[in-house]
Amino acid sequence: MTRIREFNEFRTKMNEIIESKKHLGINRFFALDMQAYEAGALEPKIKELLGLVASMVLRCNDCITYHIIQCAHAGVTKEEVYDALNIALVVGGSITIPHIRYAFELLEEVFPE
Amino acid sequence: MTRIREFNEFRTKMNEIIESKKHLGINRFFALDMQAYEAGALEPKIKELLGLVASMVLRCNDCITYHIIQCAHAGVTKEEVYDALNIALVVGGSITIPHIRYAFELLEEVFPE
Amino acid sequence: MTRIREFNEFRTKMNEIIESKKHLGINRFFALDMQAYEAGALEPKIKELLGLVASMVLRCNDCITYHIIQCAHAGVTKEEVYDALNIALVVGGSITIPHIRYAFELLEEVFPE
Amino acid sequence: MTRIREFNEFRTKMNEIIESKKHLGINRFFALDMQAYEAGALEPKIKELLGLVASMVLRCNDCITYHIIQCAHAGVTKEEVYDALNIALVVGGSITIPHIRYAFELLEEVFPE
Amino acid sequence: MTRIREFNEFRTKMNEIIESKKHLGINRFFALDMQAYEAGALEPKIKELLGLVASMVLRCNDCITYHIIQCAHAGVTKEEVYDALNIALVVGGSITIPHIRYAFELLEEVFPE
Amino acid sequence: MTRIREFNEFRTKMNEIIESKKHLGINRFFALDMQAYEAGALEPKIKELLGLVASMVLRCNDCITYHIIQCAHAGVTKEEVYDALNIALVVGGSITIPHIRYAFELLEEVFPE
Repeated sequence: MTRIREFNEFRTKMNEIIESKKHLGINRFFALDMQAYEAGALEPKIKELLGLVASMVLRCNDCITYHIIQCAHAGVTKEEVYDALNIALVVGGSITIPHIRYAFELLEEVFPE
Repeated sequence: MTRIREFNEFRTKMNEIIESKKHLGINRFFALDMQAYEAGALEPKIKELLGLVASMVLRCNDCITYHIIQCAHAGVTKEEVYDALNIALVVGGSITIPHIRYAFELLEEVFPE
Repeated sequence: MTRIREFNEFRTKMNEIIESKKHLGINRFFALDMQAYEAGALEPKIKELLGLVASMVLRCNDCITYHIIQCAHAGVTKEEVYDALNIALVVGGSITIPHIRYAFELLEEVFPE
Repeated sequence: MTRIREFNEFRTKMNEIIESKKHLGINRFFALDMQAYEAGALEPKIKELLGLVASMVLRCNDCITYHIIQCAHAGVTKEEVYDALNIALVVGGSITIPHIRYAFELLEEVFPE
Repeated sequence: MTRIREFNEFRTKMNEIIESKKHLGINRFFALDMQAYEAGALEPKIKELLGLVASMVLRCNDCITYHIIQCAHAGVTKEEVYDALNIALVVGGSITIPHIRYAFELLEEVFPE
Repeated sequence: MTRIREFNEFRTKMNEIIESKKHLGINRFFALDMQAYEAGALEPKIKELLGLVASMVLRCNDCITYHIIQCAHAGVTKEEVYDALNIALVVGGSITIPHIRYAFELLEEVFPE
């Protein structure tokens, strides 16, 4: 899981550097972002799938990585991820295919058989 | 519910005109689009929320209209829609706010108190 | 052809107002934009189809209107436009469907049977 | 200034409706959005120009309307707005031209000679 | 042509993995995507140029790579590609310039003098 | 400053190759792009901030790199860059966060303490 560890390490390091600058607006945004995926009217599992589909149609590999990891933590199954990726592919079109390939490669690491 | 009826009438009329042109690729795409939201590993309720969030971050009012109507049909509650819109707002940023306003105005029609 | 006339009138009026402000950068950009579709290694017919597909995947109805009118002037057939729209639909995904509907409605006006 | 009044009225009405739903995440986002344009290391005048250019390259007419009104309040001149629009046009390309036309039409109302 | 071979190998490997998951919607989408570029009312040469311009304005390097390779196969000349890239650059703006640089670097490999 | 040097070297090399092709439209676009940031109604410092925010909301790391380097040349302070990045983050949403991380990492190199 080298790629995932590298992603997590860079993410943690940079989030700490950004936080250390004490820009109130930026720090509040980061907090708001975390809170959006906490349990509410919708459970975290659904929220992570929403985050994954949004990341796919907006075509951001780092965001896809983050939400696939979070989906696994929240108990989403591989088949449910496929269904979500299919919706993203239909909504976002073939321009998302390189990110679909990226997601499937990552799924092999995050959801080993 | 005038706006929703107008949306549905235009959508039906144009889908029929498009289908009548018998372009194989276009007609297959429309079929694939419908199938993506049918029950599978994920239930329709979750799929409509995924479609709604994708439509919001890609900022398409017609698509937002369609998925809010479908959410109501699938039994999604207003509070669940708010939670989904919040994720779309955080992921997509303030540029989505005019579409958030549009969605809330529509919610008053589709989910009357 | 009311909609097309209205589009053309507004476009002409605003282009004149913009030009009258004499902002060198903006005026040069407008000139560059016109030149891009003139005959070169590719003929105008193909260039207008390129402009149409770019406008569709970037989802701009005014740009779609402009390039469909130009396609008709350049001798593109309705069937060729359908093929181009199909590529735009596959690349850009279902989020382009409202613009596909818009384009087909306009095609009825611009390419009457 | 009918269009501007209508925009402001709809914006105020919907913001109140949205706030009344008491969704913590959404309400915090709206607050964060307002705060981003308050005086800080950069003065409001520059911040409104930043908001305008971001709105233009992301092609949102409502957001363009809002930031042009705010630019006028903050003391930005028409010539400064032209320069900002030129940058948005070059960065965002001809796909922004319909929004450039929209902005110039609005400028006639907001900055009367 | 190392980069092109690497691209093709990864593309083939991942497409096989994705197909092996037997998700009906995803597999149908991949088939539809291939069919869109087959000869129809428009010849493959024009279709590949349409795919290239769409990929450029949506700023996807993998998609640009794929369509430049396909353009060469379909008999498009380098000068025709330049003309198509110019339209993409004008429509999509300076934000596409890093992808324009990428495309020109690739063209040296795909269309050697 | 290895990354910045590599970026500059690749940028210079490719710009020369592109210019050598003598495509009039492309070369004019590159000239227009440079001119947009020269002093006019707005000073270069503000223009570079506009370019940075546009690059951030459109999520292009190469463009972010270029404008952060130019901001430093134009005398923008680190705190002013933070304020601009905050606006980009609020407008563009959490999908920009990987680019915000990238920008902060680069800022450590370009604006050493």
